Amino acid sequence: MHPHGATGPLVAALDIGGTKIAGALVDAEGRLLARALRPTPPGGDGESVMAAVGEVLGELRAAPGWPEAVAVGIGSAGPVDAVRGTVSPVNVPGWRDFPLVSRVQEAAGGLPVVLAGDGVAMTAAEHWQGAARGYDNALCMVVSTGVGGGLVLGGSLLPGPTGNAGHIGHISVDLDGDLCPCGSRGCVERIASGPNIARRAVETGWRPADGVAATAAAVAESARAGDPVAVASFDRAAQALAAGIAATATLVEIQVAVIGGGVSAAGPLLFDPLREHLRRYATLSFAAGVEVVPAKLGTDAGLVGAAAAAASALQLFTLAAA
Amino acid sequence: MHPHGATGPLVAALDIGGTKIAGALVDAEGRLLARALRPTPPGGDGESVMAAVGEVLGELRAAPGWPEAVAVGIGSAGPVDAVRGTVSPVNVPGWRDFPLVSRVQEAAGGLPVVLAGDGVAMTAAEHWQGAARGYDNALCMVVSTGVGGGLVLGGSLLPGPTGNAGHIGHISVDLDGDLCPCGSRGCVERIASGPNIARRAVETGWRPADGVAATAAAVAESARAGDPVAVASFDRAAQALAAGIAATATLVEIQVAVIGGGVSAAGPLLFDPLREHLRRYATLSFAAGVEVVPAKLGTDAGLVGAAAAAASALQLFTLAAA
Repeated sequence: MHPHGATGPLVAALDIGGTKIAGALVDAEGRLLARALRPTPPGGDGESVMAAVGEVLGELRAAPGWPEAVAVGIGSAGPVDAVRGTVSPVNVPGWRDFPLVSRVQEAAGGLPVVLAGDGVAMTAAEHWQGAARGYDNALCMVVSTGVGGGLVLGGSLLPGPTGNAGHIGHISVDLDGDLCPCGSRGCVERIASGPNIARRAVETGWRPADGVAATAAAVAESARAGDPVAVASFDRAAQALAAGIAATATLVEIQVAVIGGGVSAAGPLLFDPLREHLRRYATLSFAAGVEVVPAKLGTDAGLVGAAAAAASALQLFTLAAA
Repeated sequence: MHPHGATGPLVAALDIGGTKIAGALVDAEGRLLARALRPTPPGGDGESVMAAVGEVLGELRAAPGWPEAVAVGIGSAGPVDAVRGTVSPVNVPGWRDFPLVSRVQEAAGGLPVVLAGDGVAMTAAEHWQGAARGYDNALCMVVSTGVGGGLVLGGSLLPGPTGNAGHIGHISVDLDGDLCPCGSRGCVERIASGPNIARRAVETGWRPADGVAATAAAVAESARAGDPVAVASFDRAAQALAAGIAATATLVEIQVAVIGGGVSAAGPLLFDPLREHLRRYATLSFAAGVEVVPAKLGTDAGLVGAAAAAASALQLFTLAAA
């Protein structure tokens, strides 16, 4: 029944974010055997968002592989609470302490459900199939509209007691800095996310070309053309990311930081100053060697990672190489 | 043969710092059955420091319990390198990449030797016998001449691959801040250590009483008498510690931060503003509940912890309650 010839148990994976809800059946080699996708109802109440999740699961249940599904893995925008099985995603206002695990379990015919934050899920994917593969101690990050992350320590995913470990976007690297929407000051995300790269560029005099939106991608384009204000905004983001990565290396001895997400598509414009700043912040012998590399998996990382997190938590199957 | 009636295997523990080298035989309940102590030869070369270690071990080998010693646990000022078995303590200049593990093993008749940083050792002690007992996820810190620390995650000590995990004193919480001797900027230690509390107070106009040295303890005395400059210097230290603890809670989901060391003796003068600042920096739901408590073990924490770290690494015996 498996289109790719796979056998063995499958995990139904859900990747839930503020703009889309994706689902897939994932096999022990990380292949996606069936897919479903719905937009996240904008500004909808909790039940309308849940209805979209139900439709995604309904499509998966209709797929030929469903009888082999033994668990559901959810990677959700955070914060999540894996102990209580609830989620309160900042960008899904209709869900506050929403009992996602019990609702999904009901909609999935009683299968066991594992919930993790989206940063943890992305990390599971990069460790299984991507740029963190072969490393026992790694930080994986998404630098995009927000900044998220997750950790692998001692060879294993570290979800943390509530599934939120690795939230590097909200550690303060500037204790007197700008207020962050989270309530703290000088968070990595407040300095390094795409919208903040664009905001800082505009505030210091940069303007996008006519008809072009003021995004981090537009700032990157100006920077590549030599605009010093645009270059400076990326450099500041790189500095904050470097301070955050250095803090993580100093606290838990990671060997590699993997960076994905839209902002990382800027390539050397981000990675070159990041590595330079990192030399200044990661100074202790055991932290100074930390490498920075781009993520390898694309938009499917959330689904692959949700499956990997569930497989790891439930010890369903050994994560094989693709 | 045990003065306290203990039976079973013992660990020979060494606590090596810039001012003293302490040793003890430690039983499975954390009791110290024999002790030895030497000052660290100031400015001495590597061999003279090693000779002092040898004298401490010689006293332990002469103690009645020695035949039951099955391992040596070392907690050393850092950085250490547990993989290579070497140490390069900042405040023991004679030791750079010094092969401490092989030299101690030789001096201890071939017993297995486990090396950890002093922050890791202190954490093992507080988790076994002190204020972190019963917590599966904890940060333990020493705030003194420097700021050190260690982590317990998922119920186990996290030494990290090289024995240095938990180095919270050298994470930057102020990315544009003052240069730290480590080479980075705005490190927690650069703001919150005892000497930096005193330095900042002096720089902003505080003077100790006649004949009193300008120490953090003297600043604390002035602060308790209402001196606003002294209060402000402690408040700034508390702010940096709060930002560092919040970063740790956000990255790895700790439930408690245990604080020991000379500066923590200031009591409410440190802990009250620290808890207040922590509310502002630890904002995400899963981090907001982190508690801050004083350490319970005194100067013996280094010895008890070196034994605990060795017992845990070698699975020598179950760490029993005292």
